[in-house]
Amino acid sequence: MSSLTKAYCQSLDDRDPIAAQRDAFEIPEGLIYLDGHSLGAMPKAALQRITQATSVEWGRDLIGSWNSAGWFQKPYSLGARLASMIGAADDEVVVTDTTAINIFKVAAAALALRPDRKVIVMEGSNFPTDNYIVQGLVGLLDRGYEIRFAEKPDLLDALDETVVAAILTQVHYKTSHVLDMAAITRRIHDVGALAIWDLCHSAGVLPVDLNAVGADYAVGCTYKYLNGGPGSPAFIFAAKRHHGQSIQPLTGWWGHAAPFAFDRDYRPAETISQMLTGTQPMLSMAAMEAGLELAAGADALLVRAKVCALGDLFIQLMDERCAEFGFTLISPRLGVERGGHVAFDHPEGYPILRALAQRSVIGDFRAPETMRFGLAPLYIRYVDVWDAVALIAEIMRTRAWDHPDMKRREAVT
Amino acid sequence: MSSLTKAYCQSLDDRDPIAAQRDAFEIPEGLIYLDGHSLGAMPKAALQRITQATSVEWGRDLIGSWNSAGWFQKPYSLGARLASMIGAADDEVVVTDTTAINIFKVAAAALALRPDRKVIVMEGSNFPTDNYIVQGLVGLLDRGYEIRFAEKPDLLDALDETVVAAILTQVHYKTSHVLDMAAITRRIHDVGALAIWDLCHSAGVLPVDLNAVGADYAVGCTYKYLNGGPGSPAFIFAAKRHHGQSIQPLTGWWGHAAPFAFDRDYRPAETISQMLTGTQPMLSMAAMEAGLELAAGADALLVRAKVCALGDLFIQLMDERCAEFGFTLISPRLGVERGGHVAFDHPEGYPILRALAQRSVIGDFRAPETMRFGLAPLYIRYVDVWDAVALIAEIMRTRAWDHPDMKRREAVT
Repeated sequence: MSSLTKAYCQSLDDRDPIAAQRDAFEIPEGLIYLDGHSLGAMPKAALQRITQATSVEWGRDLIGSWNSAGWFQKPYSLGARLASMIGAADDEVVVTDTTAINIFKVAAAALALRPDRKVIVMEGSNFPTDNYIVQGLVGLLDRGYEIRFAEKPDLLDALDETVVAAILTQVHYKTSHVLDMAAITRRIHDVGALAIWDLCHSAGVLPVDLNAVGADYAVGCTYKYLNGGPGSPAFIFAAKRHHGQSIQPLTGWWGHAAPFAFDRDYRPAETISQMLTGTQPMLSMAAMEAGLELAAGADALLVRAKVCALGDLFIQLMDERCAEFGFTLISPRLGVERGGHVAFDHPEGYPILRALAQRSVIGDFRAPETMRFGLAPLYIRYVDVWDAVALIAEIMRTRAWDHPDMKRREAVT
Repeated sequence: MSSLTKAYCQSLDDRDPIAAQRDAFEIPEGLIYLDGHSLGAMPKAALQRITQATSVEWGRDLIGSWNSAGWFQKPYSLGARLASMIGAADDEVVVTDTTAINIFKVAAAALALRPDRKVIVMEGSNFPTDNYIVQGLVGLLDRGYEIRFAEKPDLLDALDETVVAAILTQVHYKTSHVLDMAAITRRIHDVGALAIWDLCHSAGVLPVDLNAVGADYAVGCTYKYLNGGPGSPAFIFAAKRHHGQSIQPLTGWWGHAAPFAFDRDYRPAETISQMLTGTQPMLSMAAMEAGLELAAGADALLVRAKVCALGDLFIQLMDERCAEFGFTLISPRLGVERGGHVAFDHPEGYPILRALAQRSVIGDFRAPETMRFGLAPLYIRYVDVWDAVALIAEIMRTRAWDHPDMKRREAVT
């Protein structure tokens, strides 16, 4: 007995208090885009914004735009916009560089705050760049640091008084599992360590309150649920209590106390500015502004409620319609334990996703056999979930995935 | 007796073999833009390119553009385009991150190649971010590295067998003085050290041949004479003989030997890929493509000849028309010793530049009293130089700079 119908899904859309947000995005006709956890869709305003930045700010006003168009302030103004979404003060966040580089900065700054401790706790199953960057830092320092890899549910057991910092991602990039940031940060602080949070899969789908939980540092990207555009610059949060107490080592001129004094020697800014290094890509920053405005303007609790509901619906429909096809749900069943995507393992995950893509339903693949479906709450509808699962069922029933064309791998998926 | 006339300047433009390049740029009507050494003008194709990248690649094709629009290849394809301009092989250059961050990468990689040496030679008067970054690296490593600051003409004297690397900027950001890259690199290698060149003010105005001189590493920006757009990502050159021999420590997933294997542990690519760290801002990269194509398509020797001629003309006109106004030329008089801009010191340099800007001639200021005038060869005309110097003479004669409005400082100049 199926309790769910497309008409019911339509009624959920009709009653969705944030349904109108979808109109702000350019969603290609007929496409069901379930990959917003990798690259968010384009806000309509982004095109206008980047055209203005290119033709007027760069083309017409040229160098003057550093002042007149606020380019010089962009890392701060975009940072302040983000701050409101992650429970930070305006002067604790800047937008700059990449997530990977920003992890290097905050990890190095954290290590310097506890010079007598040598253990860094991370999840081995985390998105690898976090681990790679810390491995690079530890190798560069070459003074006995150890990365202690742990996994939930044993994460808390890895924390003891040898630990200098734990660097954790709130929402797991593969399983979508949400770590309890408040409880874990408390435990990290109980052992005297520092809490560094990667918010790549959090910002824009989860209410995050960094200062309420007492986080020390955080980083994240802006091109997923914040819809900043392909490769749009990342962000850094540094709690105010650490400003001027520890510096990050990529000491470029933007982090200098007086960048335009052109002094020979570096003197760190004692503000969030010290997290900056070099000149940022202003056209990408301009496009990003549109996405940040939409995300910051949405009610965070309504967004969170819809993310949970979309995921619950997806899972329930998969249970009802695809139980016999060999999918294994690897995301939590409980909405509150899940981020913005739902993930299933399937030995034929790759060709199944190709067959879906050919029929205009876009999900993505993570080796060896994980299928991820992103449910970006600002533009995904309940009927999209219905249609996507209906198509998965059809593809499985007809074995449409079982074709050489579907199995051919592309460079990036 | 004045030997120069505007008609003569016009005749130089008429005979200029690369005069037509100007048509490829959007130059605001009536503006004489002598700031291309800071932010290059906008190629007309850039707007079209970025509109396409935004509305079609991002907006319509979404995640698929990582393959279909070549986003994944951009650091390499743009790098190969640049390689042809700086005497590098296609697989020795990538476009990524900022100049400052790239200096950190190559400096760290170089230090690791000569672990027994502790002295790094730099110019104290260099653009400060280079010095700041190396100071940050040395501070982070905390194992007895020393930065030995030297200045020309004593640069070579600073080189001895304690030196691990010299990190030098080919064209001085302030004076425009060109260092002899071939002779200096030879001397650096004679003492067994590594040669790292900053090409920020070189690429697009000077013929550079990194492999002919045997350079080890190089970095540079793309938003000056390469007209890549505000803050467009920078580049890195690593000589092939060093690939796989030394790794840079910002070990993000893009530098992994198999980035999509999602291994837990970092394994460096043994190619130029290892110089990459995180995901790049693709919209800014798209705009940059237009500028790189124009620069790569121009005849490097004609470009160099025009740069010299424009600067010679500027200096000669200043001699003839502004001799009594207290300007001090700080750039070399000889064209071959000069980069793309000419610089003068004047105690009232700041208000003079403001008065010029008010009258649509844009130069820039570097504290305490340097005025820089960039002569970007692809779009600056000989008559522009005539008109600019005529205006300087008028402003000095009428003391138009001597007004409180001209003396008010902006945040960035």
